[in-house]
Amino acid sequence: MSRYRFTVAYDGTGYAGWQIQPGQTTIQLVLQDAFCGISGTDGVKVHGSGRTDAGVHAAGQVIHVDLSRELPPTTFVRAMNTRLPADIRILDGAVVEAGFHARKSATGKEYRYFIYQGTVLPPHVRLYRAHVQKQLDVDAMRQALDILVGQHDFAAFSANPDREVETTVRTIFDAYLEVDGSDIMLSLRGNGFLYKMVRSIVGWLIRVGRGDVLVGDTQAVLDSRVRTAAVPTAAPQGLFLWRVAY
Amino acid sequence: MSRYRFTVAYDGTGYAGWQIQPGQTTIQLVLQDAFCGISGTDGVKVHGSGRTDAGVHAAGQVIHVDLSRELPPTTFVRAMNTRLPADIRILDGAVVEAGFHARKSATGKEYRYFIYQGTVLPPHVRLYRAHVQKQLDVDAMRQALDILVGQHDFAAFSANPDREVETTVRTIFDAYLEVDGSDIMLSLRGNGFLYKMVRSIVGWLIRVGRGDVLVGDTQAVLDSRVRTAAVPTAAPQGLFLWRVAY
Repeated sequence: MSRYRFTVAYDGTGYAGWQIQPGQTTIQLVLQDAFCGISGTDGVKVHGSGRTDAGVHAAGQVIHVDLSRELPPTTFVRAMNTRLPADIRILDGAVVEAGFHARKSATGKEYRYFIYQGTVLPPHVRLYRAHVQKQLDVDAMRQALDILVGQHDFAAFSANPDREVETTVRTIFDAYLEVDGSDIMLSLRGNGFLYKMVRSIVGWLIRVGRGDVLVGDTQAVLDSRVRTAAVPTAAPQGLFLWRVAY
Repeated sequence: MSRYRFTVAYDGTGYAGWQIQPGQTTIQLVLQDAFCGISGTDGVKVHGSGRTDAGVHAAGQVIHVDLSRELPPTTFVRAMNTRLPADIRILDGAVVEAGFHARKSATGKEYRYFIYQGTVLPPHVRLYRAHVQKQLDVDAMRQALDILVGQHDFAAFSANPDREVETTVRTIFDAYLEVDGSDIMLSLRGNGFLYKMVRSIVGWLIRVGRGDVLVGDTQAVLDSRVRTAAVPTAAPQGLFLWRVAY
């Protein structure tokens, strides 16, 4: 029995999110079924670096699995990609030590969020962008984003704040916003993210960009530590789990 | 009764191509149903600049329709986009003179073809790129493309050459290939394209890029005026009807 780490990319459009749930097609379930298939057992458990919600994508989700058949990681990558649907792909793999854990060993994560601004959302990007018709004030969005960088209590930017989490304090290492024509890309790197934290931050930044609220309101919302309707949750399809660091 | 011109973008993934066919969901059919719906008649005919095959996309297909309700084009654009599925969008519209015809009045077209080169095709681009695992020799592809620019008999780069067309001579005004990381984009502008002509040209260029055939073979294939298995048809999902000129 060896422990393997794999990097996984997926299009979340057709799935009820990452986590296995009764009666739902989830990414974790499809991966687990495929690993059981190539292993000839039904006992393989897939451990991800964290959950993603329905409609959210991944460019670099990381998982670990314990496999009894010991083969080169590239052999598993090829066998899995033959078996998996085209909207889930294994990008690479490696044998890791038994102490490695996809979630617990992670030291940081990068999420990217993509917005299309324009009157009409082009069909071929509709599943991978949030759509904002109004031209956004990206300088204001950048200023608001800067306020959120660092170690803060992000309770105001999380859903289900009464979920059992030890603390709602997280550190955003850095964050930036890039504009490329009609596309806006936000990158956030941090030591961990609360439930719906990235989409809540983006939801707020879009309000800032529209001019619905002021950049200066950001600090007050953060300090309130209470999630209110002032912070909407941005659409899932704009979000990509981009990279997990170890 | 006024004649209107509309620019239409679509994701061809879910459709049996452009043209109305019995028992199939096609883009022309969905557009026509929507125009009939907003017009309150069942007599609206949608005329496109040309057909696209199943799985082929459009960023700038152009259509004309005759509508008895005379409203500003922007009103029709909004009404249509409310009624249409998200994978078909009207980008803009204008009233045109009665002599305008989406196909017959066109003076040129641009097609773009997108290739992803790399071991694994990322899920979020899988519906909009052809996948080539091997690193392609793009300089060789550019040289072969240059040979095809100009007025030629493109019978060797067309499917169904025995289809009833007056002539298989077409003019490619210009063509270029751009590389952006793992993405290759080919643009072809011409006065008209034969059935599957762009995908046949790209199919040949991919063979050149792989080193399966030589750049210098291109002229001989063109001169043969006969379609053979030497020219494969590239996958539909890489192709976009990009723009129609009038």
